[in-house]
Amino acid sequence: MNDASQIHSESPVSGEVGIVRYQDFLCEEEFRFESGETIPSFQLRYETYGKLNREKSNAILICHALSGDHHSAGVYSLQDRKPGWWNQMIGPGKPIDTNRFYVVSSNCLGGCQGSTGPTSINPKTGEPYRLSFPLPTIRDMVAAQAKLMDHLGVDRLFCVIGGSMGGMQTLQWAIDFPDRVESIIALATTPRQNDQAIAFNAVGRTAILQDPGWQNGEYATGNGPNVGLSVARMMAHITYVSEEGLEEKFGRARRLLDSEQTLEEIEFEVESYLRYQGRVFVSRFDPITYIYFTKALDRFDLYGPSGELEETFAKVSARSLVIGFTSDWLFPPEHNRRVAAALLRAGKDASYAEVDMKFGHDSFLLDSEELSLFIRNFLIER
Amino acid sequence: MNDASQIHSESPVSGEVGIVRYQDFLCEEEFRFESGETIPSFQLRYETYGKLNREKSNAILICHALSGDHHSAGVYSLQDRKPGWWNQMIGPGKPIDTNRFYVVSSNCLGGCQGSTGPTSINPKTGEPYRLSFPLPTIRDMVAAQAKLMDHLGVDRLFCVIGGSMGGMQTLQWAIDFPDRVESIIALATTPRQNDQAIAFNAVGRTAILQDPGWQNGEYATGNGPNVGLSVARMMAHITYVSEEGLEEKFGRARRLLDSEQTLEEIEFEVESYLRYQGRVFVSRFDPITYIYFTKALDRFDLYGPSGELEETFAKVSARSLVIGFTSDWLFPPEHNRRVAAALLRAGKDASYAEVDMKFGHDSFLLDSEELSLFIRNFLIER
Repeated sequence: MNDASQIHSESPVSGEVGIVRYQDFLCEEEFRFESGETIPSFQLRYETYGKLNREKSNAILICHALSGDHHSAGVYSLQDRKPGWWNQMIGPGKPIDTNRFYVVSSNCLGGCQGSTGPTSINPKTGEPYRLSFPLPTIRDMVAAQAKLMDHLGVDRLFCVIGGSMGGMQTLQWAIDFPDRVESIIALATTPRQNDQAIAFNAVGRTAILQDPGWQNGEYATGNGPNVGLSVARMMAHITYVSEEGLEEKFGRARRLLDSEQTLEEIEFEVESYLRYQGRVFVSRFDPITYIYFTKALDRFDLYGPSGELEETFAKVSARSLVIGFTSDWLFPPEHNRRVAAALLRAGKDASYAEVDMKFGHDSFLLDSEELSLFIRNFLIER
Repeated sequence: MNDASQIHSESPVSGEVGIVRYQDFLCEEEFRFESGETIPSFQLRYETYGKLNREKSNAILICHALSGDHHSAGVYSLQDRKPGWWNQMIGPGKPIDTNRFYVVSSNCLGGCQGSTGPTSINPKTGEPYRLSFPLPTIRDMVAAQAKLMDHLGVDRLFCVIGGSMGGMQTLQWAIDFPDRVESIIALATTPRQNDQAIAFNAVGRTAILQDPGWQNGEYATGNGPNVGLSVARMMAHITYVSEEGLEEKFGRARRLLDSEQTLEEIEFEVESYLRYQGRVFVSRFDPITYIYFTKALDRFDLYGPSGELEETFAKVSARSLVIGFTSDWLFPPEHNRRVAAALLRAGKDASYAEVDMKFGHDSFLLDSEELSLFIRNFLIER
């Protein structure tokens, strides 16, 4: 199957993917989670850009981060103000060149943006799963994506690419499906969630679980633990940026100089910015999925029982590029270097690149000539 | 006045301050805040260790951090399991040597641990101040402490010492009372709160202000926005430690391996630790004071209108030691270096020391031979 039909205004001149539509893949087989729990079927939402070639050898899978989605490039209409989250990276003539590659951008199992997750209807009961939905792991997300690849007729991916939680999926693809992955690019990621990152997630979950609106997950849609979710997001957002980036953006700028202001009012611009981040997130994300995905992150640990990362990587056959960002303090350069070093110790074809950007963990989402060049060149050499 | 009478079991052999009692100083003059608002009188709680000498030249003032208090050394009874928060630093023969110095450890105006603050009764109304209490600044805290020094007969302090928010007070003392301060030691502090630190405080305040228990500050004691306050504290606590420190302490240790656990249960030890921090804090700290003190931190900015720190330091006459901690990412070494560098550019007698400790911002509260030596030597040389 080829979804290239959905690309309408792809133009080599503009270099833009143009107008896209998402697709839904329904897998009617039972899906067994790592925990052993099962669901009778599942759906994954995805988009594709570019065309699958005759040899079916030019497919690239894009994996999204915690709060990302399947809409990584293009626009849904010409009125759209914002294109997909990696639009500067994906398109005709761009580093992930849709003139050459068939790009599949997949949503994650357990999500709340069109793929089956806690807010979906359980076909066995006719009611939403809510907390009865099994906790997915990164491995489960990847296993579901593999079913999507089967459906699309892609036996072997030319490359799997992702940052942050998407980087974890990328590594898991190389480990779990060595025969199906020719190369990977993992950005701003980690071989295992450290205690600091677990701690931030734990506080976010506490804010949600202790919000009176939580109601053990039985809240009415849109009327759940909104305060808890927005607090969780505001805090997490700080971990996605950097001291220097915030300083440059805000520099202690104030909205109110009036000493008579009330406590509820916003004094510093950075406060206003964070509240906006929290508000927008609540309008588009489900609290149970937030808890589930942060749990998936926290449980991610490639070290395994031996404590040796290279043992986990023994089966990998993919050529690998790992990219760290200097100002990322959530998954710092050192975590990314560890991945590349372990791949090399395991005798794999791996390299590490470090991009000097000052906007913290989220740098991987931003425009950078250097980052573009690293990705473009890695995808050109074969 | 000399409060040395309260030191009971001071023993050069044990080297411990021993059993202490706190005192309350009532200032019956009107106090005018920087904002122009006034309160008719105020009380500061404090402790003293050691004896004021005849020349009244051996007094040291200890300023506490956001969640600290006046109990910095000694125990309240022999059954006490925990001595004051800087007990390893203060005592006979210790770096802040109570055989030589008269140590005054003062609580802060606006606090909730015995000094006048939002939970205190407004003598004009007979009701607690709550939100009608003026927002104190670091400068206000220092002005109130100066009244305490008047009361104790201390015209000139040999040294003012404090870390974090206490370090801000220490710098403010040197700026506002150049004639009354012979030397200062400022630890793990900053010349101004940066946007990242403001951002964390803003999230904490949002959690409190949006907790249904907030009730615009009119909550019954102990029955206020406890969830919000504990979330704020859990998050802030992460900023007081370090990635490496957490990793060493917990190393992803789990309490539950059972995949059948519910979401509310605690999986990782670091989660249990943070929840404990939140719980304990709620039992001893008032939400309004937490909001007030974080506001005081956020508004702290020594740069002033010119943007030149050395201009602010022009009036300083104190000899200064500024100490940064390598793993502190809340007020990183660089912030502390900036303070010392500006003092030097302003022609002052200043030095900077950096202590290599891995436990983050809170390192200044921990035992370290190197830190002890820096403080001991600075207080010996005259």
